[in-house]
Amino acid sequence: LRKAAIIAVGSEMLGPLRQDSNSLWIGVRLEEIGTVVVRKAVIGDDIEAIAAELAVASAAADIVITTGGLGPTADDVTVAAAAKWTGLPLERSAAFVEEMRRRFELHGMRMPAVNEKQADFIVGARVLSNPRGTAPGFWMERGGKDTVILPGVPSEMKEIMTSSVLPELARKGGGVVSRRRVLRISGMGESAVEEIVAPVYTKWKDDPVTILAAPGEVQLHLCATGAPEAAQERLAAMEADFRAVLGARIYGTDEEDLPAVVGRLLREKGETLALAESCTGGMVASLLTDAPGSSNYFLGGIVSYADSAKKDWLGVSEETLSQRGAVSEEAAREMARGARSRFGAGMAAAVTGIAGPDGGTPDKPVGTVCFAVAGPGGRETVKRRRVPGDRAQVRRWASLFCLHLVRRQLLEEGSVD
Amino acid sequence: LRKAAIIAVGSEMLGPLRQDSNSLWIGVRLEEIGTVVVRKAVIGDDIEAIAAELAVASAAADIVITTGGLGPTADDVTVAAAAKWTGLPLERSAAFVEEMRRRFELHGMRMPAVNEKQADFIVGARVLSNPRGTAPGFWMERGGKDTVILPGVPSEMKEIMTSSVLPELARKGGGVVSRRRVLRISGMGESAVEEIVAPVYTKWKDDPVTILAAPGEVQLHLCATGAPEAAQERLAAMEADFRAVLGARIYGTDEEDLPAVVGRLLREKGETLALAESCTGGMVASLLTDAPGSSNYFLGGIVSYADSAKKDWLGVSEETLSQRGAVSEEAAREMARGARSRFGAGMAAAVTGIAGPDGGTPDKPVGTVCFAVAGPGGRETVKRRRVPGDRAQVRRWASLFCLHLVRRQLLEEGSVD
Repeated sequence: LRKAAIIAVGSEMLGPLRQDSNSLWIGVRLEEIGTVVVRKAVIGDDIEAIAAELAVASAAADIVITTGGLGPTADDVTVAAAAKWTGLPLERSAAFVEEMRRRFELHGMRMPAVNEKQADFIVGARVLSNPRGTAPGFWMERGGKDTVILPGVPSEMKEIMTSSVLPELARKGGGVVSRRRVLRISGMGESAVEEIVAPVYTKWKDDPVTILAAPGEVQLHLCATGAPEAAQERLAAMEADFRAVLGARIYGTDEEDLPAVVGRLLREKGETLALAESCTGGMVASLLTDAPGSSNYFLGGIVSYADSAKKDWLGVSEETLSQRGAVSEEAAREMARGARSRFGAGMAAAVTGIAGPDGGTPDKPVGTVCFAVAGPGGRETVKRRRVPGDRAQVRRWASLFCLHLVRRQLLEEGSVD
Repeated sequence: LRKAAIIAVGSEMLGPLRQDSNSLWIGVRLEEIGTVVVRKAVIGDDIEAIAAELAVASAAADIVITTGGLGPTADDVTVAAAAKWTGLPLERSAAFVEEMRRRFELHGMRMPAVNEKQADFIVGARVLSNPRGTAPGFWMERGGKDTVILPGVPSEMKEIMTSSVLPELARKGGGVVSRRRVLRISGMGESAVEEIVAPVYTKWKDDPVTILAAPGEVQLHLCATGAPEAAQERLAAMEADFRAVLGARIYGTDEEDLPAVVGRLLREKGETLALAESCTGGMVASLLTDAPGSSNYFLGGIVSYADSAKKDWLGVSEETLSQRGAVSEEAAREMARGARSRFGAGMAAAVTGIAGPDGGTPDKPVGTVCFAVAGPGGRETVKRRRVPGDRAQVRRWASLFCLHLVRRQLLEEGSVD
């Protein structure tokens, strides 16, 4: 596999206020064409520092990509640094100055004199045209290695990468690609997933499989590298093996998150949903309505934060509140039933719990959360869980577990342990 | 100011799945003691690559801090790389092997043989004890420059930085510090804020003032560097100047966000709040209930996604819905009034709009959002805005603008333009 190094140029990214995000995007794209990133750096707007990093990066990698420092102002010095490092001279392109001037005039503006600097081309480098901005990129080939100089504005960088850089690097890489698949599992912890997949893990030990714990879910990241068809086949075989042991515990793949999956299932089944939330305080509703078109299946919800709201709006009984408490399986069940009947929904889900940091008791410590789903035909799921973590983690986990229970009931697969 | 370079070691941080977050934290802490970060790098678990980066970093900076690669496994090679770069030998500390063994036994475990490697100390380097883990850090002084080797586990790295590294670096820096203040402004765009602060900006042009646009707010980051008292005084003077022109447009400082400020005001005034949300789908409620203790002032909310919910739950009139539409100032006003009376709250706020991507009309394009706040004594605020951006941006902005209107009404400063 060819090795790549990424250099993000800009003093502002060395302070606490702005982070480099370009190199993550570039890294993902390079990986897709079977390239492995061996170093990343953020360097200030300083000719010596950029030239030094170009030298180190070029010694370590076959491909060096820089992003940033191509602007018109005095502190934009990446081109000067590249010229210094290579020993190649700069030459101002009169044709390009004219082209920039025309572009400004097209927008009814006069080109500032400083912009002329962006026409200083590295002699011997290929110019990469920038359809979205004035600063062009450059491509230099030396000793079998490629150095690509790109602007820092994300939209400009991505456009040049996609249209000019990646196709050519892919050709040079001999058509090797990497294919990724993320399998997403809800309602289980990382170790429970690991136990189930252990034999499959062993079978595919030569391929990178990564297990990641995210809030409320576990992700398996599968990756296969090779010729496009072979990589695709290998990835499909890996996925099939993991699916064989995990089954419906996998709720979705790649970018599809749990709220989107629940929305898709509700739409497919022509079902409608209402919510009654206490400790999650509207987060479940907010997650569901993130998805466009959610008004097709989501009728609405009650954030019944005060006990009086649980009684008045949802019909939770005085007896349940006084004898079992607002955080109880019974209260959750009555909240779900109340929301279902009052919204006239096919299904309703309820969450009530103690998110903390205060409000815990020996009986119901912070993190105690009760869930209920009420569906058609009197079908109901009721769960109680002790969720670890701080307030934000409890709320997030509880919101996703609520959606997990809705999904499981929609799949009519029996209740979840 | 002394210059620093940060090196994050670990091949996993070069892939798309795990990001280096340590160097951001380290950078902020270094800045506070008047140090400026001049380069950051992420390097894989490779002796040559780490040694090469140590050389480059040390040439560029007075202080080099590495984090990661101190674990017990074969791919943890930062110590070996530091030894290689300096030419200093490694020597296994029998005493430290014993200490590790005792620590494992305290937790009822046997120390794995691989862990002995963590007792390989760099001869001539100072050992930095790690109260939270087995891997110690190292401090090397050579030619007036400091190289600090730290573990990658964030809690361990932060502990050693805070207890051992930062105090000593601060002493070496001659007591120069940087002090920061963030002024947060809601309900205005970046250019409107810039126009107001332009004269103050000019006055403090020698000090770094950064204006940042965040979703739903604009932030002014002020920074002053010098001896502690002088820096503090200078920062206070800067803040006073900006406050003089911005006044109550500044809703909070530093970490205090808008939901927290609204919560504090509600508590201070003994007021209660209820919500009626349509396009924001529970996001306003979710933001408010992120704050611990929000049950003291937040009674609850209705996510009235379907029109029937707006009628049944909030009493929005048939006439308003059919003649003005669910997205109208009138509907927002009726939603707020309905939520206020039905929750028995002192104040209620309502949001109704078209978050997109579908549902727009020539009259009410995507991004049209109406807001209302109903308060004691019949006091009401009603607003209509056209919000730019995609669905997520419209929802986020509208949620924060709703809280902005609640704050303005709580301050009794008249309605906002």
